[in-house]
Amino acid sequence: MIIVTSAKVRRDIRENLIQTHPDIDFRFHTHINDAEDDLKEAEILITYGEDLTENHIYSAINLKWIMVIAAGLDKMPFVAIENKGIIVTSAKGIHAIPMAEYTMSMMLQVARQAKTVISNEQNKKWDRFLEMTELHRKTIGILGAGAIGQEIARLAKAFNMKVIGLNRTGKQLNNFDKIVTKKDIDNLLNEADFVITVLPKMKETNEILAKDQFNQMKENAILINIGRGNVINEEDLLAALASGKLMHAVLDVFHDEPLPQDHPFWLENQITVTPHISGISPQYQPRAFEIFDHNLNVFCSHEGNYINLIDPRKGY
Amino acid sequence: MIIVTSAKVRRDIRENLIQTHPDIDFRFHTHINDAEDDLKEAEILITYGEDLTENHIYSAINLKWIMVIAAGLDKMPFVAIENKGIIVTSAKGIHAIPMAEYTMSMMLQVARQAKTVISNEQNKKWDRFLEMTELHRKTIGILGAGAIGQEIARLAKAFNMKVIGLNRTGKQLNNFDKIVTKKDIDNLLNEADFVITVLPKMKETNEILAKDQFNQMKENAILINIGRGNVINEEDLLAALASGKLMHAVLDVFHDEPLPQDHPFWLENQITVTPHISGISPQYQPRAFEIFDHNLNVFCSHEGNYINLIDPRKGY
Repeated sequence: MIIVTSAKVRRDIRENLIQTHPDIDFRFHTHINDAEDDLKEAEILITYGEDLTENHIYSAINLKWIMVIAAGLDKMPFVAIENKGIIVTSAKGIHAIPMAEYTMSMMLQVARQAKTVISNEQNKKWDRFLEMTELHRKTIGILGAGAIGQEIARLAKAFNMKVIGLNRTGKQLNNFDKIVTKKDIDNLLNEADFVITVLPKMKETNEILAKDQFNQMKENAILINIGRGNVINEEDLLAALASGKLMHAVLDVFHDEPLPQDHPFWLENQITVTPHISGISPQYQPRAFEIFDHNLNVFCSHEGNYINLIDPRKGY
Repeated sequence: MIIVTSAKVRRDIRENLIQTHPDIDFRFHTHINDAEDDLKEAEILITYGEDLTENHIYSAINLKWIMVIAAGLDKMPFVAIENKGIIVTSAKGIHAIPMAEYTMSMMLQVARQAKTVISNEQNKKWDRFLEMTELHRKTIGILGAGAIGQEIARLAKAFNMKVIGLNRTGKQLNNFDKIVTKKDIDNLLNEADFVITVLPKMKETNEILAKDQFNQMKENAILINIGRGNVINEEDLLAALASGKLMHAVLDVFHDEPLPQDHPFWLENQITVTPHISGISPQYQPRAFEIFDHNLNVFCSHEGNYINLIDPRKGY
């Protein structure tokens, strides 16, 4: 059996795969262009899920399973994949820990005015009169209460925050004081001191935060987007910040990435731009390949259930 | 009965005190110099505890109780206080929440390279290849396992960290995997990825971290001092950082405060200086005056127990 990668896999993980699966022919590549020839023979492909075209799928005549070692699947050619009956699994869930730590870090950074503290340090300025707030007893609203949102909720509860979530069904979950659905989003926006979006890119999430929603937020609210850039109407956000509808936005994802050099977000004091780093972790690949190992066992033995099996019609 | 303040008390709290205690004659001042005349008549003094001399104590002939709305008592003239049989209570414990939030904030700030991320943002640089670490599964060593140390431990546990504490007795506490005493400090230093000091200023804590202790730390260890500056030998710390004995120090307290303009800490990249802000919180005075209210009731009724009654011989 041949397994091909178009994702760059860490050396220690490659060595471990070869050692633990001597019967498998691994063809490690770091780019889809180099992987194309082997893809025509392979049964399994390991990819970040952003490099595949319909042509790749149709020419990969032996391909039975694509393991996407990422969570976002919005660039996958699902129509072709469904036509060919190829299984897709993702690494959904492995981002929960770093993304929740990023979120807590950024809430604390803004609440404790870290940018000003750091700038004062650079100027040797000893200023003890900066206004700071606590997370304690504040309210967090989490748009998207999946694995990542639930991990954020768990940490927010440890900080004694009130936690409101939004999901598709309104189903109650641990560590949430309240769950609302999209039609009641205003309930969440009215109350939240911190609004976190962890929503995937889909038709239903497109610009879910625009003028009307910013109007519902608290004046001192802080918005943090770690999901996908399409969730926010960027022009409306700039206007809402300028007119004091909310206080600050921390954005890790954007309509266009990398964020263009001339984009107004870079220079706006009320916006913190980070370069899509919330999921970065030294544990990223080890966690992804734990899922791969489990699923490879299911694939070979025909026993057990795949972790994160994707429905190609839904895309999740 | 007369109550005098040398600490600046928030207007809403002053108004509430006057309203709820119409029988008490409050003399609100914001500096000890202005309070001196009233202090000669008052039974109760409310102070931050850093402004009293022996002369104040001896000339305050009616003084029976000093409420210190702070936790550090190292500037209190305890010999005179004991001679006069004056009761002292402190606001110990009210710093736990903001100081624990500061500590988590700073651990995340260093682990996620926030200074570099912010500097990249200022330069419109989109760099996704910064190395970042997680708190998850790391080890935190907390020197001083009182109210603040225990709150840090509780939050660290929520981040799935291993927690080692140091206290006087070695007594086990909730949320600590292990407690050591001063003679076994090396056990803590050998293992901790983050070393937090929350120790008070006392003879026994003086330069508890010096060359020999820095030699015991992990190469990539991060030191955070939110207790008192005397705990650290500053020259040894600079030498230890320069020779790679530990990676970074976040210092909120210093031998001399404000940190002098020509102090080498300001310009050292491996040191983050903050201006003694870890305890700053909008909830500071409300929490301190909750303790005062309770203790005032004990003082007037001679019933119940004082919160944070201090032994003037020990100073804590």
